[in-house]
Amino acid sequence: MCEANAYIVDEKGDNTLVMEAVDLVEPEEDGVKLISIFGEQKFLKAKIHSLSLVDHKIFLKSDG
Amino acid sequence: MCEANAYIVDEKGDNTLVMEAVDLVEPEEDGVKLISIFGEQKFLKAKIHSLSLVDHKIFLKSDG
Repeated sequence: MCEANAYIVDEKGDNTLVMEAVDLVEPEEDGVKLISIFGEQKFLKAKIHSLSLVDHKIFLKSDG
Repeated sequence: MCEANAYIVDEKGDNTLVMEAVDLVEPEEDGVKLISIFGEQKFLKAKIHSLSLVDHKIFLKSDG
């Protein structure tokens, strides 16, 4: 399974885990929707900073 | 390995494969940079439409 963990990257470059086992990622106008392999949904006021798929990592940056 | 294939989604909803075995995805101001597990780089004037990680798929939408 190729789900990934999603992290918020802050200005200092530190990462905070916001969701594990993310399957679907849908950028929307004012944020990003994450849906895990368990069907859990989370909406964050953030944008995609980068993806590192082989490492199973999604990096987000907060909009706020 | 959890690399993914990247597709451009057009207005009709059709998908065109633009890169296989993508590892790194970096959205930039005017497009998105894709880097494959082989180190191949591609820059596209596109945005991330959505990700389906368990299906190994990255969907992009063209900016132009």
